[in-house]
Amino acid sequence: MNRYSFCPVCRQLLEWAEIDGRARKICNSCSWVHYINPIPAVLAYVVNRNEELLVVRRAHEPAFNEWALPGGFLEAGEEASDGCLRELMEETSLAGKIDRLVGVYHRNVEKYGSVLVIAYSVVVEDDTLSLNHELSEGAFYPQELIPEVRIPLHLQIIHDAALFELVS
Amino acid sequence: MNRYSFCPVCRQLLEWAEIDGRARKICNSCSWVHYINPIPAVLAYVVNRNEELLVVRRAHEPAFNEWALPGGFLEAGEEASDGCLRELMEETSLAGKIDRLVGVYHRNVEKYGSVLVIAYSVVVEDDTLSLNHELSEGAFYPQELIPEVRIPLHLQIIHDAALFELVS
Repeated sequence: MNRYSFCPVCRQLLEWAEIDGRARKICNSCSWVHYINPIPAVLAYVVNRNEELLVVRRAHEPAFNEWALPGGFLEAGEEASDGCLRELMEETSLAGKIDRLVGVYHRNVEKYGSVLVIAYSVVVEDDTLSLNHELSEGAFYPQELIPEVRIPLHLQIIHDAALFELVS
Repeated sequence: MNRYSFCPVCRQLLEWAEIDGRARKICNSCSWVHYINPIPAVLAYVVNRNEELLVVRRAHEPAFNEWALPGGFLEAGEEASDGCLRELMEETSLAGKIDRLVGVYHRNVEKYGSVLVIAYSVVVEDDTLSLNHELSEGAFYPQELIPEVRIPLHLQIIHDAALFELVS
């Protein structure tokens, strides 16, 4: 993720320097520093009124064709919970309501680098799906019929969200 | 926060385009897109064995001289909980242990733009403080002697963390 060679503000060649205890690229002309932070993303554990879980199949990389939870990157200025409901709406047309925060996770993704993932459990009244181009398939499944989710982080979130339901 | 004029990868002048439903700056030469995401940060609600709360006074902008919770920005590749304990260690020399996730928040900060804040409650055994240059003052305070925290988000986190302790 450190493909930056030029200052995006003033066009000078960037150079390496130690800033706040880490090697970072800096512009010696305008002092711009290339801080690299995790990119925040959201994932939704969505259940309908029958306690069935929404699982979708990804139509793009990364994890092309894998069963997954819906979600995506947060936009600047957005509350994480709002971003979670926006992504759900964009991908599936579902109008969800936040139930609770499930957890905060991190993973390194080859395509994007460091990703900070915030997972919410979400409930929907109307579970009629209309998938966008990011998904090839998707449905609400009862526990025993959930397709095989192989993305480790998504599996963990399903586990964590279900565990909370058991103890609460 | 949109001061970028040049592509950091190939040095071309950036141009505005609609990408994923939003106006973003793009490089028409190498297709680099300037996505702007919230910057993830962490804040720590730290209590010692006497249930006293750590409150610190900020020695830098933003919120110079205000009483606050310790914290800072996450680094790429870092778990949010690890980043929270790292920031605590850097600023105060305290070796904390994560108690629980308090919540996920968002605020717009003039200096940084959109900031996503993850708050944890943290416990420490040894509460001997050694403050770094980012802080001018700090101590563990019993509930009734906590200095006036005026930063709305920090106040809210103190409220949310204390509320959880009451109901749990």
